[in-house]
Amino acid sequence: MTLTSTNPATGTVTDTGISATTNVAEITAAATAAFHVLRTSTREWRAGLLRALADGLEADRANLTATASAETGLAASPRLDVELTRSAFQLRLFAEAIEEGGYLEATIDRAGDTPMGPGPDIRRMLVPIGPVAVFGSSNFPFAFSVAGGDTASALAAGNPVIAKAHGSHPLTSKASFEALNAAALAYGAPAGTIGIVYGQEAGATLVADPAVAAVGFTGSLATGRILLAIIEKRERPIPFYGELSSLNPLIISQGAVDARAEALADGLFLSFTGSAGQLCTKPGIAFLPRGATGLVDAIVAKASAAAAQPLLNSRILDAFGDIRGRLIADGRATSLVEPHSGDDGFTLTPAVLAIDAADVTDAVAEEAFGPLLVVALYDDIAEVTTALTGVPDSLTATVHAEDDEWDALAPLVADLEDRAGRLVFNGYPTGVRVSWGQHHGGPWPATNSAHTSVGVTAIRRFLRPLAWQGAPAELLPVELRDDFLAIPRRVDGVLTLGTPA
Amino acid sequence: MTLTSTNPATGTVTDTGISATTNVAEITAAATAAFHVLRTSTREWRAGLLRALADGLEADRANLTATASAETGLAASPRLDVELTRSAFQLRLFAEAIEEGGYLEATIDRAGDTPMGPGPDIRRMLVPIGPVAVFGSSNFPFAFSVAGGDTASALAAGNPVIAKAHGSHPLTSKASFEALNAAALAYGAPAGTIGIVYGQEAGATLVADPAVAAVGFTGSLATGRILLAIIEKRERPIPFYGELSSLNPLIISQGAVDARAEALADGLFLSFTGSAGQLCTKPGIAFLPRGATGLVDAIVAKASAAAAQPLLNSRILDAFGDIRGRLIADGRATSLVEPHSGDDGFTLTPAVLAIDAADVTDAVAEEAFGPLLVVALYDDIAEVTTALTGVPDSLTATVHAEDDEWDALAPLVADLEDRAGRLVFNGYPTGVRVSWGQHHGGPWPATNSAHTSVGVTAIRRFLRPLAWQGAPAELLPVELRDDFLAIPRRVDGVLTLGTPA
Repeated sequence: MTLTSTNPATGTVTDTGISATTNVAEITAAATAAFHVLRTSTREWRAGLLRALADGLEADRANLTATASAETGLAASPRLDVELTRSAFQLRLFAEAIEEGGYLEATIDRAGDTPMGPGPDIRRMLVPIGPVAVFGSSNFPFAFSVAGGDTASALAAGNPVIAKAHGSHPLTSKASFEALNAAALAYGAPAGTIGIVYGQEAGATLVADPAVAAVGFTGSLATGRILLAIIEKRERPIPFYGELSSLNPLIISQGAVDARAEALADGLFLSFTGSAGQLCTKPGIAFLPRGATGLVDAIVAKASAAAAQPLLNSRILDAFGDIRGRLIADGRATSLVEPHSGDDGFTLTPAVLAIDAADVTDAVAEEAFGPLLVVALYDDIAEVTTALTGVPDSLTATVHAEDDEWDALAPLVADLEDRAGRLVFNGYPTGVRVSWGQHHGGPWPATNSAHTSVGVTAIRRFLRPLAWQGAPAELLPVELRDDFLAIPRRVDGVLTLGTPA
Repeated sequence: MTLTSTNPATGTVTDTGISATTNVAEITAAATAAFHVLRTSTREWRAGLLRALADGLEADRANLTATASAETGLAASPRLDVELTRSAFQLRLFAEAIEEGGYLEATIDRAGDTPMGPGPDIRRMLVPIGPVAVFGSSNFPFAFSVAGGDTASALAAGNPVIAKAHGSHPLTSKASFEALNAAALAYGAPAGTIGIVYGQEAGATLVADPAVAAVGFTGSLATGRILLAIIEKRERPIPFYGELSSLNPLIISQGAVDARAEALADGLFLSFTGSAGQLCTKPGIAFLPRGATGLVDAIVAKASAAAAQPLLNSRILDAFGDIRGRLIADGRATSLVEPHSGDDGFTLTPAVLAIDAADVTDAVAEEAFGPLLVVALYDDIAEVTTALTGVPDSLTATVHAEDDEWDALAPLVADLEDRAGRLVFNGYPTGVRVSWGQHHGGPWPATNSAHTSVGVTAIRRFLRPLAWQGAPAELLPVELRDDFLAIPRRVDGVLTLGTPA
């Protein structure tokens, strides 16, 4: 049996010629063999590898974006073009980060007297954990898929990666793998540095495989729970870094409405309809003052006039209709803009619902992946805080307000700190900056919140500490030797900056 | 029904007068209320709190050590006295660490042009996660219990702690809680900053409670699995930081035997019999060259001459006998020194078994908590590597060798890096230094290996990242404001040292 691929813009189904993987154990064995080489590789060598992978992706740009466009319905340009650039940028940013070396958390406590008596020499740094399984998402066929941030950060740390090809974009997964693998082999990386498996069953087998040391996942809460259940049955538990579901509440103050309703309508409309609303940081619910009729009307006008865009697959299209239906069926949300299907494929126009903020509790508990905005009207900002207790925790929370309102809004902002991983002020949560300080991860069910999946610190997920006590210098990693000064280290409790050669 | 306490040195059972806790939800509600205060506390305030707790423990030293001695059979002095000092030292070390501030991982990416277009201002640091449940161990009634490292690191991070009183030392748990709680309240900490629950059922209820944000656990693999199963049933998964079981292989080279057999006999004997062998880092299996008969004889002589010491409870005593029995019953291990029970309580003399290194695989897979050493005799160092594939991964692995042997031993050391969290060279794994660089955590089943439970970086377990995008300065934590320079921060990718005022 071979896998099929469906063009969501047309509904056309194509046979990919790709067979479901049946030799998962062979692939993980190759990854384990590669790990024994990668773990001793230098940071400089791995930085070179990451840059070679970035170059390899960019060299295949036309093929990759065309393939992905046919499988996702996203425009090859600029949408997928920018996303491929982002994938390459991520790889290069991790190259910089590992060259800088602070991520190792290198620490030296020299032997000596302590308040607890004589202490031995202890040196610690982070080391790679082993083969990492990467399950990408449907909505970012590059930046959160085979060539995405999980792959980049796992490789940067010194781990091999085994990607599970996405069922909605198997050909893009395959083409990405081939571009990366060719670049890795040409660079001199061992076979098994990057692997791929196809098919749902192979994915499940991969997560259960004893050789796999961690799982990175971006997708639905339902699928995430299935993978978690497999992990719970493993003899050796492994970390599951899932990005699962997010409603991303956005709150607009009266002052902001008064000052810039038109700009807010533009920004909010773009944010909830961009990529057909299929972004994990899409604002799914917007709290507006009840009197903001001009702003609501403007959003309604834009949504009503918008053209249909393809959703990524029929499952997402169906779930979108189901969730929207449930919001109305319970009698609390009313439709302001009905979605309409396009002529072909899984296309849809944006939808807007309205609800009273007092009715939000428990009613708006599901993310509708796609171009749906729920407008929740409030009389008093305190209603928003109450309503948020019924909204699942999210990757982001956004507040729009004027300078003279922040004092009054401070309690709301403090409350949001508990409910999200990133707070956005007078901006939009979509368009996640890839940078040193980014945090893309909120409390459950958004993610398991201890780590980010975007930005430099994503590398920490795929590392573990190791300590050496009284070690002969020649058995220490170079970064922990006395005379190595090129990276930031903490020596006897005092942080020292690196002095790169 | 009230809980009982047993003196392991005599077997005497006392009614403690303590009732099993039935109002867990009230206690977690108080912790949640305290969290809302603690989360906004300054690092300076919390450092003061930690020092007040240390002072409070030390002020009650005589009562605490006497109480603990009667419940654990450990000597009040020096053993428990030193351990109490260690608990106080840990609290003060975390005070220093949070004052220094590097643990916040404060990061600022200023708004500006990036290769991906204009980037918003992103600021990130670590924030506390919420109430932490702490399950201490039987063997360290202070340093790994109510007043232990999990409590210190969780409070340092800004989280309230709810300890589960240990069933083997309920009175010590209660006295520790009272000393800490009184000091906390006197310092001005909110009620609910430190809580305690008694009884196994209350412990299970605590782990299932939605208000609990993480669990720290030090104990047996079996109990750890029970708590993990409770966590897996929670609607919101939370991290489980368990320290579970560890065999701690120790390898002695031929050169080391030739150079210093007597010192090795002394050191190894002290390491496996100290605290009656009830240390999580006790070397449970020692690989010796087959010809090292003098060293073996010396260990046997010391073990045969040793007095009986009390084990912590009857369960540990029974398990010790069972595991030792299984090692012999399968016909591969032979007894060199038989353990003998003392006249009273749960006392026992040390035991030594011998096994052929070639027979170790799968045979020595259980930690016998107590004074048991398995001596595995090898002909060739390569046999050790093979044997280790059957030994569960551990907190530590130790190698004794001479300088001219390290080259030849490098492959063994590389192999050990995969199997342990701390490598000890020409030393002993017991006596874990509490310091900035310590790592006390090995691969499963030793722990879930991503974090340490001893040393400054233990604080990372109880923190999560939070990012602010485009935030007004007054809504940022002071540590992320432009003009705050007192702590190390990463600004636009460049690490900067703090300049404390």
